[in-house]
Amino acid sequence: MRNPQLNEHGELHHLLTIEGLPREVLTHILDTASSFVSISDREVKKVPLMRGKSVFNLFFENSTRTRTTFEIAAKRLSADVINLNISASSASKGESLLDTIDNLTAMHADMFVVRHAQSGAPFLIAKHLHDTGQKHVRVVNAGDGRHAHPTQGLLDMYTIRHYKKDFSKLSVAIVGDVLHSRVARSDIHALVTLGVPDVRVIGPHTLLASNLDQMGVRVFTDITQGLKDVDVIIMLRLQNERMNGALLPSAQEYFKSYGLTPERLGLAKKDAIVMHPGPMNRGVEIDSAVADGSQAVILPQVTYGIAVRMAVMSILASN
Amino acid sequence: MRNPQLNEHGELHHLLTIEGLPREVLTHILDTASSFVSISDREVKKVPLMRGKSVFNLFFENSTRTRTTFEIAAKRLSADVINLNISASSASKGESLLDTIDNLTAMHADMFVVRHAQSGAPFLIAKHLHDTGQKHVRVVNAGDGRHAHPTQGLLDMYTIRHYKKDFSKLSVAIVGDVLHSRVARSDIHALVTLGVPDVRVIGPHTLLASNLDQMGVRVFTDITQGLKDVDVIIMLRLQNERMNGALLPSAQEYFKSYGLTPERLGLAKKDAIVMHPGPMNRGVEIDSAVADGSQAVILPQVTYGIAVRMAVMSILASN
Amino acid sequence: MRNPQLNEHGELHHLLTIEGLPREVLTHILDTASSFVSISDREVKKVPLMRGKSVFNLFFENSTRTRTTFEIAAKRLSADVINLNISASSASKGESLLDTIDNLTAMHADMFVVRHAQSGAPFLIAKHLHDTGQKHVRVVNAGDGRHAHPTQGLLDMYTIRHYKKDFSKLSVAIVGDVLHSRVARSDIHALVTLGVPDVRVIGPHTLLASNLDQMGVRVFTDITQGLKDVDVIIMLRLQNERMNGALLPSAQEYFKSYGLTPERLGLAKKDAIVMHPGPMNRGVEIDSAVADGSQAVILPQVTYGIAVRMAVMSILASN
Repeated sequence: MRNPQLNEHGELHHLLTIEGLPREVLTHILDTASSFVSISDREVKKVPLMRGKSVFNLFFENSTRTRTTFEIAAKRLSADVINLNISASSASKGESLLDTIDNLTAMHADMFVVRHAQSGAPFLIAKHLHDTGQKHVRVVNAGDGRHAHPTQGLLDMYTIRHYKKDFSKLSVAIVGDVLHSRVARSDIHALVTLGVPDVRVIGPHTLLASNLDQMGVRVFTDITQGLKDVDVIIMLRLQNERMNGALLPSAQEYFKSYGLTPERLGLAKKDAIVMHPGPMNRGVEIDSAVADGSQAVILPQVTYGIAVRMAVMSILASN
Repeated sequence: MRNPQLNEHGELHHLLTIEGLPREVLTHILDTASSFVSISDREVKKVPLMRGKSVFNLFFENSTRTRTTFEIAAKRLSADVINLNISASSASKGESLLDTIDNLTAMHADMFVVRHAQSGAPFLIAKHLHDTGQKHVRVVNAGDGRHAHPTQGLLDMYTIRHYKKDFSKLSVAIVGDVLHSRVARSDIHALVTLGVPDVRVIGPHTLLASNLDQMGVRVFTDITQGLKDVDVIIMLRLQNERMNGALLPSAQEYFKSYGLTPERLGLAKKDAIVMHPGPMNRGVEIDSAVADGSQAVILPQVTYGIAVRMAVMSILASN
Repeated sequence: MRNPQLNEHGELHHLLTIEGLPREVLTHILDTASSFVSISDREVKKVPLMRGKSVFNLFFENSTRTRTTFEIAAKRLSADVINLNISASSASKGESLLDTIDNLTAMHADMFVVRHAQSGAPFLIAKHLHDTGQKHVRVVNAGDGRHAHPTQGLLDMYTIRHYKKDFSKLSVAIVGDVLHSRVARSDIHALVTLGVPDVRVIGPHTLLASNLDQMGVRVFTDITQGLKDVDVIIMLRLQNERMNGALLPSAQEYFKSYGLTPERLGLAKKDAIVMHPGPMNRGVEIDSAVADGSQAVILPQVTYGIAVRMAVMSILASN
């Protein structure tokens, strides 16, 4: 069966997950993003690539930060953007997800950017559009449950490539709540596809998924071992709801065992970079001295995130 | 007294209700909408007819779906759109409706799209603008209480004309909660004005208005009689709040007596079309087999709704 | 130490407060606003001065009215506008104010319009941008705590200059809850800087600040004395939360002592103008006969407010 994200020419049709995408597709997105990085520095930060296209931000789960990055990216491509906070609207009138999609498609939507608490929702939408012959509409997954957050994964890859150039010799460590993290899953698929030989995940037993070995990564529960000589450290956000629950004793305990301090950062290579998808819990997963230190590239990640989302949207719109 | 919606040349100045509008005005809107249907299929879906105009979506009652259709229509006309959810703002500071209108008019608004739970609110606004000499500002009623929903009525007429061409030989049935439905009221006025000879309403006694006879329609409480040989079936949405109340025993009972099933649809003409203003309650007023069947034109209604709203807005802006 | 709002050439870099701004800077804003007043009357109300710039409305405190005026002003300058209601987003995820600012700056924001319940928040943001070398980003204070509301102060000055031409011979009275009013504070600084010789504040002891004498104003607790022969009356909004508290007996009592009635208005000069920042509490601080009377210029204030905000934004963007 063909990858549902690719059209018959092997080009990207939807962006649902990084899993299963060929290396050339990822590289093409990163290369396209390069050209958009410079646009953001210009006096007039707009290009007309999506003029007259209607992009719908469908956020079934609230995320102002992610919604804003897509809104900015779409507006810089000159698209018309419609923000829909769905939990507050039709959902409360009992309309089904697919009836909502059918209605918006009938309004001549060109692209849906979908955030949903349930894993697989963007897939379901893409499949429905395919089954009902609405093939001109594109879907971008902006985070679905614990499953995937492909644009975050891509902006992380852009950042790594920017600072480290060559994926083929890197050691990359992902630290924290890997079990619940769609960012971790997207990063792991991207790193492996792009040829990173040493991908490590670090966290307590209770926050590690059981299938990590099959994903081509090495698992560490001891952070001092896991960080040794790595080139890149990707810190994950610890969700507040985990902190006082059964999985973790407390935020303080977590910081003691897995927080990224300057000392622990010293275990990595001298020129290692520190990444975080934001928003950070300072003093929980990361020490402020590291977050604001010279090795952190957390704000450049945000900047590249706009360019990567412009790249994804313009590629989908032109394929 | 002159119709407050028309200017001294008999042209549309506001769109408040279909009641009392001459047939030529309705036909002009439908003809104008035709030209906008094709725009939505273009690569660049924008025309500059309202460039630099400020359209305010004043939604005193929440309706993401209707607000979105007006927002898309205005953006495709190149207007600047400002969405105001009024219940959450000045209303809570105790400012009166007309003070709010005066303030927004002072910001050089060109058009208000008004949704309000109280019947007559858009009329009140239009009258106030007239009395205070703010004649350049236009008002579009996007649904007021139980009174009117004229753009829904117009898009229904567009849909019927598209599929049935000639109004003068049609039988049209409106089924459901006619008593509380502004859609039903707008449809009835439009159908009668456009010359439909046989307009029927079907529903339980408790959900039928007492003045229906005077509106030129035939009333049926038995759906099997009412649907016989009709060309068009317009299903109404059953509001959740009616279902467990004094007016209706239950949703299941309602479906048993008035839900549109494939069998009941078989009573109508073979080429009858099925319409619904959305969002649908599947299994309450309509069976999914009908909603997704070949005779349903519910999604084309949505598409034509954008074109009709573009037509209304551009006609008002140019008169 | 240099005024943090001005650049090394003495030009406006941020607009944080009117306090300390030289008269020429204020006059330049008012002169620039004049040119924008006429734009609002044009068929196409847009100028391309901020095309491709990204303006973020950061409203940590809800104010649909003020947010709308900035949104309209920015759109008429052709900027891209992103509205962020921050209390509902990252703040709830525990992200700090400055982390939010860093993130949005990394998305290549050009301007922040900031509303915050805490006095000094826009200063804190401007200082942070300076300290972190993000000097291309501008900050406009859209109201911070009890401290300042500089664009309201400027639009009040524009209105006074429009009707009275020459500041150097005026008597201006500010009436009401001066203690809690950022509008009063901004107006007083502006009036004094622009050379108004007689600035009066009128209110009950409990609602007057203790440092008013040092600000160059005369204090009255008796409104009949205070209004005598003034050219301009600026009424302040009485916050609902004050009315039933320890500071005031009741709204009725307040109106009896300080409400602006036609009789009291008669104490001022015959051609005195009446202003109010809105939204008005009719029957609390102002009688409807005055609010809707011929001396009220409350709606022109709103109109000039758009032009003044366009002036401030375009000046900041070009300096």
